[in-house]
Parts: sequence; structure tokens; C-alpha cells
Amino acid sequence: MRAKQDKIGRRGGQGELELLRQIRSRTARAAANGVRLGIGDDCALLSPRPSEELAVTTDLSIAGRHFRLDWHPPEVVGHRVLARGLSDIAAMGARPVAAFLSLGLPRELTVSTGRRRAWIERFYDGLLALADAHKTLLAGGDLAESPVALADIVLVGAVPRGRALLRSGAQPGDLLYVTGSLGGAAGGLARLGTLSAAPNNSHREPVIPKKMQPLLAAHLFPQPRVAQGLWLQQRGLATAALDLSDGLSTDLAHLCEESKVAAEVDAHALPVHPTATLDQALHGGEDYELLFTVPPTARLPRAIAGVPVTRIGCILRRRPSNPAIMLVTPEGSQPLEPHGWEHFC
Amino acid sequence: MRAKQDKIGRRGGQGELELLRQIRSRTARAAANGVRLGIGDDCALLSPRPSEELAVTTDLSIAGRHFRLDWHPPEVVGHRVLARGLSDIAAMGARPVAAFLSLGLPRELTVSTGRRRAWIERFYDGLLALADAHKTLLAGGDLAESPVALADIVLVGAVPRGRALLRSGAQPGDLLYVTGSLGGAAGGLARLGTLSAAPNNSHREPVIPKKMQPLLAAHLFPQPRVAQGLWLQQRGLATAALDLSDGLSTDLAHLCEESKVAAEVDAHALPVHPTATLDQALHGGEDYELLFTVPPTARLPRAIAGVPVTRIGCILRRRPSNPAIMLVTPEGSQPLEPHGWEHFC
Repeated sequence: MRAKQDKIGRRGGQGELELLRQIRSRTARAAANGVRLGIGDDCALLSPRPSEELAVTTDLSIAGRHFRLDWHPPEVVGHRVLARGLSDIAAMGARPVAAFLSLGLPRELTVSTGRRRAWIERFYDGLLALADAHKTLLAGGDLAESPVALADIVLVGAVPRGRALLRSGAQPGDLLYVTGSLGGAAGGLARLGTLSAAPNNSHREPVIPKKMQPLLAAHLFPQPRVAQGLWLQQRGLATAALDLSDGLSTDLAHLCEESKVAAEVDAHALPVHPTATLDQALHGGEDYELLFTVPPTARLPRAIAGVPVTRIGCILRRRPSNPAIMLVTPEGSQPLEPHGWEHFC
Repeated sequence: MRAKQDKIGRRGGQGELELLRQIRSRTARAAANGVRLGIGDDCALLSPRPSEELAVTTDLSIAGRHFRLDWHPPEVVGHRVLARGLSDIAAMGARPVAAFLSLGLPRELTVSTGRRRAWIERFYDGLLALADAHKTLLAGGDLAESPVALADIVLVGAVPRGRALLRSGAQPGDLLYVTGSLGGAAGGLARLGTLSAAPNNSHREPVIPKKMQPLLAAHLFPQPRVAQGLWLQQRGLATAALDLSDGLSTDLAHLCEESKVAAEVDAHALPVHPTATLDQALHGGEDYELLFTVPPTARLPRAIAGVPVTRIGCILRRRPSNPAIMLVTPEGSQPLEPHGWEHFC
């Protein structure tokens, strides 16, 4: 997308140069809120308001580990790559400003054959649709030939100075909340795995039957909770927050570690996704919901920007002799050990 | 380095968790000029001065294309990965603030065997030494297992609003300058290729004889011209600038394209590196010198921050019927076609 991205173009001839031009023109159309200079120079230039600081995150997705070319259509890969980054921005209570994408692709994924559009074009369809929905400009990146498909996404968000939601502010007595529902991504992934008969990691595109798609939506098209994170930040309600990328048991352990507290989760209260098991809700990754804490006196609505929020437990004082997280069930309490997401390998 | 980077650690056991802890502690020691929150949350937080905007660049390096495990020692790969990004920051006249690194590595490169330190540790040695030299904090990133070694570097720099050096400001009549010397990286690479007897892209580490090292330095340890870019920006002297990553003929074409001008290069004036040919100086990539234009009335010193600057030509009005770039030699003028860097494949 910058000059360096001409490399594939130079080698590949006019077809791919044309593709890069198309990407550039598609991204130039997007709203440029806070982006003074996008694709085309050595760097992009971001101009936050003087009262803002910038939140930056990077997420690397590699075929065979974070996605599979034989399981995930290209639009889904593009959506999921950007959703990972946007979810980190949401977890800080920031507004997304710009994304940068480094893409490494086998040659065959960059060329169109006959009437079939190239994999890379459809990948951008998925990525740019989600970017548009969150007013995020694709402001730069890099493109190179690679033996394995990979995408590294960088997201930059803006947040008023000193107001970002951190993992480190939870206090004993705070209440523990989650947006949306849990386990849907893991449930969908388990179903998706039963569909594929293609050999592992082949480039053959998957066919997902229409009637299956609603059951898989939480996995295929996770929705980063940007509006919900902003809502919490603007009202100063949350004492700590993070996004559920590795699974509740793992991510809650991160929150407890950074805040130096313990936590109790009420199994009965968990908003388990209709397609998921309790185990998937506790340990399944990639739901990209927000996990956050509020003081006991805070009053929360039932839904924030259209997404339900559910109280699932509370924050306790940490005692070295006790487990960091306890799961409360009708049969009694038991330690909840981190047992998060292991992807495909 | 953030929570997500625990993935390799979770799979790989205590040794690698310990490695990630070491990286975190090594980066925490660095100066945190403009970085309010580094590794450990969903995002890093950067606090530029209210009068500044931020320059952002990403550069993807893949084994077999941008480096070779059997040619380049790990410290060299780390240095070169960061140098690519810092050079883009230099080309904007910005001061580096923070780097973010997404690293994908085969498992064997993340473990130490016996008394041998792991490849990844020595990679960080090279990267962090250059980062320290430029007061750049490694503020985040991602780490994943990958069948091919790859590193995507993100650099963020700060520059007073509206003062960044762009590619697009060159005017007919401006003089064309370059820092340092040209072709040394291509010359060094050609020599490096003659040393290796190992099979293509094996993980066997190269042995570079001591007496060869000075001949290879421009390729192995390129020096991004950060101080020189800052000097030009602070004095408002340059009308346009970029860094020479793809080779003079290709990068000058980018400058002419973005500025809508033509250029004339005096072959006799080129500061050809002592180990390079004229062809390598014209077309060899990865020198990471700055190419910039100044008005004809500007007075430049012979060296900026210890690095010589050389006038190599001038900017002309663009005419559709003429070549964009002419090379003037004692035998006469000829068009200079872009013929840049093709890496290893």
C-alpha cells in the first residue's frame, strides 16, 4: 500500500499493480477522522486532538493457527483479522482511528482466475466492510509474497488523556460484568470443524451451508464491542476492562494479575451462548466480548448500545493461600484454572 | 509481549514464559519518552505533545525473501528489521517514539539448546541495541509459532504538526541530495552470497569471517538516518524526502511521481560506496540513506550529524513526452528506468 507494497506488483505485472491501486482507492474513500496522510508516503500521519492520547495494538494471524484457508472463506479471514485489533481498542475505551495491515500471501492467493476474484480481493471485502462500520481508515501497511498466508493488523485508537480503561484498576468489592454472550465462537468453531472434508490447510475454499451460518456467526463474524467500550470510558464507570480473546478463565486471570485481586464467578449467572456449552463459555476464546468491573455503587443499564450486559461475579481481596478465581455452582465452589484457547495446533 | 503473546509460553512451558518475562523487563528499562503505558495491557498508550502528530509505518520481513537464516546471524536480522522501520521515521523527519513487533517463529528458534542461547534471544539483542541507540521503546507486539520465520515491525514517531517531510513537495529547480553513500548494501549482499555453502534457507547459522565484516557492514548493519531527518525537518530545509529502501532509481521515481516532477541525476556526482559498482549505487536496495530535495537557494553543510551529504542532481519540470528521470554521464544523457531491489526470490 506504500511504495514497498509495489514489490508484488513489480514481480507480478499489471494485474497486481491494478489490484493495489484498487485497494488504495477503496481506502481513500473512507472517512479520515484523525488521519492527515494515509497510503502513499513513507509513513501515515495521525493527528489526534491535543487532549487525546493514542492506543496502539498489533495482532498476528497465521494460516493453520489463527485461521484455516480450507475452513474460512476469505471475507471471514479479513473480518476476523480486523475484529481482533478493534476489540483491543474497544477494551481501552478508545475510538478507532486507523488500521495498518501487513499481509504475506502465497502467490496463488493474489491472482484472479477467469471470472473468480482473487482471494486477496475478497479478504479486503471482509476487512474493509468492518472497517467502514467502525469508521476506521486503512492508512497503510505492507504486502509480500510468503509461503504461508499471514496478516498482522495494527490498530490505532484515540482516547482522552488519562481516561483509557486499563486491566489494573479493579478493587475488592467491585462487580464483574460481561457484554453479550460467551462460548459462541468456540461452539461455532467446533461445528465448523465437522463440515470440512478437505485436507488440513489446503487452499480449497470451504462451502458453508446457508442453514448452518447462523450457528457459526459468533465464530465467523465476531463483533468487537467498540461502542460499549466507548460508553464505559465516557461515563468513567469501569474500574478495569479487557476483551475476551483467550477465554474467560484465562482473561479474568490476566485482569486479577494486573489488578492484584481475586475474583468469584457465578456459573449460574453466565450468559452462555445458545450454541455453546458451559465449558465453552468458561474457556472458549475469540468471543471478543468485554469483561469489566464497576464499583458496587454503580448502576448499569441492562444493555449498552444494544448489547446486553450481565453481572457474572465480583472482585475479592487476593490471599496468597487461596486460588485467584473461584467458580460458584449450585454444588459448591471450586477453583477456576486458566484453560484458554489453543487454536488449531 | 501482551497477554496474547503468552500463547507460545502456554504451549511451550516455563522456559519460554521466562523468555517473555526477560523481554518485558529488558524493554521496561528503556527510556519511555512519550510512552505512558507499554507491554502488559490490551494496547500501549502513547502521549505525544499536544503540538505533535504521529508518523506510523509497518514493514514485514519474511525469511527467504527479506533475510535468510543461513546467511544472516540472528542479531543481524533483529537490527535490520528495526532499521527498516526507523528509516521510514527518519524519512518523515520525525523522532522515533515506540516500536511494536509481531514475530512468527518456528518452534526451534525459540528454545535454547545446552549452552547456546535461543535464536529469538539473539534476535532481540540486535533489535534492542539499535532501539536503545535511537531511544525507541519496544512498547508491544505479538508472538506466534509459524512454519516460516517472519517479523512485522511497526514504528511510531512524533513530529510537530504540519512539519513532516513528505514525498510530494519537490519543485522544478530544487537540488537533489543524498546522505552517506550508495550501493554498499547491495555490494555487501553480493559478497555475503558467495560465503554460504549451506542449503537455501536452512536454519544453520552462517559463519562470517572477521576480515569480511567491514565489507559487509553496510548490508548487515545499515544505519537509519534519524538524526539527519530530524535536522532537515527542524530547519525546514527539505521540500521533499524519502528513504532509499528499494534503490535510487526506484525511489527517485516515487518522489517524482508524488511530486509530479522530473529529475536529472549526475552519474559522476554519485557517492558510490567503496565496495559497490555504479549499477549497485543506482539500483541496489536497502541502503536506507535519505534522498531529499532543497530549494536552489538553500545552503547545506558538507555533513549533517556526522554523515556526508552529496548533491547528485536536480528537479525538473515534468513533460509527458520525456522520461521522468535522466542519468547524465560523460558520454551523454540517457533515461534512468526504475530497476529496484528484488530480494532473494
